[in-house]
Parts: sequence; C-alpha cells; structure tokens
Amino acid sequence: MRATIFRGGDLVVDTLPDPVPGKGQVLVKSLACGICGSDLHTVKHPRQFIEAMQHAGAPDIIDTSRDLVLGHEFCAEVLDYGPDTQRRLRPGTRVTCMPLTIGEGGVRSIGYSNALPGGFAQKMLLDEALLLEVPNGLPTEHAALVEPMAVGVHAVEKAELRGGEVPLVIGCGPVGLAVIAALKLEGIHPIIAADYSRTRRGLAEKMGADVVIDPAEHSPYKLWEKHAAGGSPGSLKPAVIFECVGVPGILQQVFQGAPPAARIVVVGVCMGMDQVEPMLAMYKELRLQFALAYTPDEFARTLHHVAEGRLDVSPLITGRVTLEGVKQAFDELGHPDRHAKILVEPWR
Amino acid sequence: MRATIFRGGDLVVDTLPDPVPGKGQVLVKSLACGICGSDLHTVKHPRQFIEAMQHAGAPDIIDTSRDLVLGHEFCAEVLDYGPDTQRRLRPGTRVTCMPLTIGEGGVRSIGYSNALPGGFAQKMLLDEALLLEVPNGLPTEHAALVEPMAVGVHAVEKAELRGGEVPLVIGCGPVGLAVIAALKLEGIHPIIAADYSRTRRGLAEKMGADVVIDPAEHSPYKLWEKHAAGGSPGSLKPAVIFECVGVPGILQQVFQGAPPAARIVVVGVCMGMDQVEPMLAMYKELRLQFALAYTPDEFARTLHHVAEGRLDVSPLITGRVTLEGVKQAFDELGHPDRHAKILVEPWR
Repeated sequence: MRATIFRGGDLVVDTLPDPVPGKGQVLVKSLACGICGSDLHTVKHPRQFIEAMQHAGAPDIIDTSRDLVLGHEFCAEVLDYGPDTQRRLRPGTRVTCMPLTIGEGGVRSIGYSNALPGGFAQKMLLDEALLLEVPNGLPTEHAALVEPMAVGVHAVEKAELRGGEVPLVIGCGPVGLAVIAALKLEGIHPIIAADYSRTRRGLAEKMGADVVIDPAEHSPYKLWEKHAAGGSPGSLKPAVIFECVGVPGILQQVFQGAPPAARIVVVGVCMGMDQVEPMLAMYKELRLQFALAYTPDEFARTLHHVAEGRLDVSPLITGRVTLEGVKQAFDELGHPDRHAKILVEPWR
Repeated sequence: MRATIFRGGDLVVDTLPDPVPGKGQVLVKSLACGICGSDLHTVKHPRQFIEAMQHAGAPDIIDTSRDLVLGHEFCAEVLDYGPDTQRRLRPGTRVTCMPLTIGEGGVRSIGYSNALPGGFAQKMLLDEALLLEVPNGLPTEHAALVEPMAVGVHAVEKAELRGGEVPLVIGCGPVGLAVIAALKLEGIHPIIAADYSRTRRGLAEKMGADVVIDPAEHSPYKLWEKHAAGGSPGSLKPAVIFECVGVPGILQQVFQGAPPAARIVVVGVCMGMDQVEPMLAMYKELRLQFALAYTPDEFARTLHHVAEGRLDVSPLITGRVTLEGVKQAFDELGHPDRHAKILVEPWR
C-alpha cells in the first residue's frame, strides 16, 4: 500500500507492506483522515512528544528510527477481518472509531504506534470491538471529523457545567472550534471566543461563538466581564474558561486574566515544561481540569450529533490533499490564517 | 504598646503607639497568636511575598520600609470600641475572627498591612462586624488556632467529596495537620499522610491520620494504591490529594505520583514561579483546585468544632513564647522536627 511515512525526520511517500489483521482486528481502507495539531507537533518536535509519552507512562512509545504512519481522525471502509472476529459489518461498510486497539499488548494508539499505521496510509488495522458504522447520508469527510469534535464534547463534559456559566474559549484552532460547537450543542450562550487570527475568529462564529475578540486589540477577560455581569451590581456569573492554545506560557496568562473562582478546562496540548505562579491561582482559588480525548460513549454520541446535523463540521474543512500533499499541508497548517482542518485522502 | 516588629529586614521588639479604633473597629488585647508559615515566608523572602500580592492584585500591599507587625491567628480580649459600633460584646470578652477588616478602604488583612498591626503586638484593631465570641471553657490558646484549622476545613470543602474517596495528604506541617483533622471530622477513612519528619508523622496520627508514611522510605502514592483498591480487580477508589507542602517542584511531583483522574487540592502556599509539565496532568486528566483561607461560615463552624472538642487542636501547640522570643521561634520553626505551632503571648 502507499503511505505518507514519518521517516528520518521527514515526511515521505513510499510503499509499505499491506497490514495483516490479527485477532479481533479489521483491515480497512482509509478514506479520509484529518491532520491534527499533535501530528504537527510529533513531526516538528518528536523527541519532546516521546518524552511526554514516557513521563506519562504510556504503554507503546514510538520509535522514530523506524517508520511511523500518522493519522488518527479517520473515516474508513471495511475490507477484511482477522481471526476471532464476528464480521458484524460487511466489507464496503464505512466506519469510524476511537483510534485505539485493545488487544493482547494492552491499549495502543492508532497513528502513534510503529505497529499500527494511521490514516495517512491507504490501509489500516482497527479493533472490531470499537467499530462504529457511519450512517448513510453522512459524508465521509464529515465522519472523519468525529474524532476532533469528540474532543470538544469531552471538554464540555469535564467542565461539569451547573447552569449559568459564561464560557470563554481561548484559542480557536480545531480544538477551540470543537469546544465552541459542543457548547452551542448544549444551548449555552453567550459563547465568547478569542483568537489572534481573523480567519479563525470567522470560523468560531460559524461554529457557534456569539462574540469573538482579537486579544491583540482587547482583553478577552475584560470582554468576558462585560457579558458575565450578574443580577446585582458588581456580581459576575461563574466563569468557565477553555484553554485551547497549548503553548508554554498560556496557563500563566489564563491565571492572570481569569476572574476569581474561575474553572479552567485545559484542552490545549502543551508539550514540555511550563512555568506558572501557583500563588496567583491560589489567590483566585482557580480550578484546573485537564481534559484529554473522550470516552467511548462521548465518541459515539458525537458521531450521532454529526450525522443528525446538530454538529455541523463542514466549515472546519479548509483543504484536501493526496498522500503526496501531506508534507506541504503540514507546512500550511503552521499558518493559522490559512486553515482549520486539512483532510488527507489516501486513494485520491 | 509593646510589639515584635518586622523592621529593616529583622524582627525587633519595640514600643509602638497604641492603635486607635476607627469607624466600626474594636480595640483588643492580643492574648495569644500563632506563628504561620506565611509569616516565616514574609520575613525570609519579603520581596517574593510582596510580588505575589502585587500579581494577584491585592488591594493593600505591604511596604517593608515601614514597620509591619505580623500575626493573624489570634485570640484577643475586647478593650474598647471606635465610633459607629454597636458595642455588642462587653470589654473583657474573649474573641477571635477572620484576620480582615472591611472598612472604607476595602478589605485589608490584619497582620499583613502596615496600617493594621497583627497579633504579635499587645493591642490590635478588629472589625466589630466579624467578631466571634470565644465560648466559656475554651482555652485561649485553642481559640487562637481556629484560624489555621479553618484552612483545613475549607480545603476539605473545596475537595467537593462525593463519598468513597481515599484521601492522601502530602506534607504534615500545620496546613496538612489541619486538613487531616478536617477529614477526620467528616468521618473519612482511611486518611493517608506523608511527611519526611518523624515528629510531624506522629502529630499526623494524633490529628487523625490512619496511615503515615516517610516518602524517603516508600512512595506515598504506592501506599495510597494499596489502600484504595476497589471492589473489582485493578479498580481503585477515587483519589483526592491534598498538597500541603507549598515549595517549587512539589506540584510536578504530585503530577508524577497521582493516579489517573485524581483531584488535587492545592493548599500549600508556594511563592514565586514553579515548573510543571501540563501534558502529564493532561494524560492523567488531573483536576487541581487551588484553595485559600476560608469563608466566614467555615471560620465560625471551625470555632464551634474546636469549642465542642470535635477538633482537638492541643497536639499542635509545641511552644509558647513572649514577644522577645518571636525571633528565635521563627528560627526554630525552620526545623520541622521540632515544632508544629508556636504561640506568641504578648502580655506574658
């Protein structure tokens, strides 16, 4: 099969042996696969990514001296089954699923394992137990975006909203946009969103933000205060801040800007060490909830939301590339004013 | 009046003019006042303390070029009233209260304001509206410890326990001991507590810890796992970790040791910047709740708990000094194996 491979520090297109499904596994065609910020980070700073996984005690650490095929936001088509499978969905069925296999070797990440090629290859192995059928009528490219949207659904769940909160979304890259869509889905208003990029602010509005702001011009926290004014003078509605940037220094910025007693959901993925001032968080009695990925139930619900049009992902898709275009797409995604989500179509 | 004054970077005993109660204020005699870790920090690193207050936007920043009288854990006796007071409690009545005044200048901290001397002076000004009468039969020295115990009660409130959690208390200085006592008060068992000091581990047991551990010998987190084993194999009860150390590096240590989905209540006061690895917290989906001080209701409830013997503070008192002894007491408190709480008795 053809694949875009992370090899020798570069992204190259080459032919790899077709993967062979093992026990409980399904061989699928990757129809479309989104490029994620974590993919960019892995290619730019592989050592940092690996160290973070090692510190976290992840079970299956990638080895960059061997071939690695990235891609974990996919819609695929069933081709064949391995041993010990129920063959529940017939070949040709379109599927998506959480990018994991739960086999004899424990939990492994599809697209972040040397043993399990991701969706930037023509074929992949999935875990039959996790397969979700893509409903008829749902475009393949939308099904591929269930994964990043589920991240937003999960982040909003982790916020444990009690009613009355005014949310502030810091950063309107794919993670922030997914959070905005999930907040809209919950009927929460006003949603305030901040990003330096005009394009991304426009996308934020399309995804459901009621107010957008350029932090270069005005403080998002001051704007938040205006919208959070409560019933009595000086009182403010509860703050829930979604940190969707994920670069060193941003947590301390949020500590500085956040109102007292704010709940902060950290969804932006920041690798490496970061500096914060605990006393500032203590003085304001901030709460930080770190949120990663999603539960199986959240993933399945997100698929239904997308299929039934309650989550409209179409504004997110700003580009489509072949395997040969992946390398350039990675470069393009470094410029936030050009793109939100680029889909890789390995069979095009 | 006589006072131990933080002056020119040193602690000196000198005579100051008696304070004059303003609108809504009460003149009191300081009968006994505990020395707090924050007092030690202020004397050792005044610039860092002031910077932290400035960053936090505190309204009344101390000026170390002027006299400052520390001490905010006090039991006092009513002497006289200022204008616009109700004179609710007659002179001679013993009182305690939150170390604040809420006057025309906004909220100011008693013992951390050049304008409001703390309990290391013979006389102080309190806010009449906040006064709580010390019940007959409650020793003065115990009433002085209501303030630090309220910190523990508040930390446990902020943990939002839902039942079934197994708590781990990191650090058994006065803050950790107050948390242990508050957990015991809630009937939560087993309480696991860690400290390098044998003396403090002994105090932790007296205050209610069921299991204590020396982190130099065994991992508190491994021990926690043993006690948190759930009903089904491999399952663990929810973790709630109280960080009561407050030095740079401790948060990252907790990130490393904490089990997935742990809730961490940060009660230890760490000044200055600190380094953490956000990805580690994200991988485990940790939750951090920073907790400071207490609410008026929590303070009043703590006084009742102490008065009715449900919170026994007597093991905490390991020393008593006159104003002349404060300086040496500050030195002694740097050695965790010698002391928990030293009380200053300005009239002795």
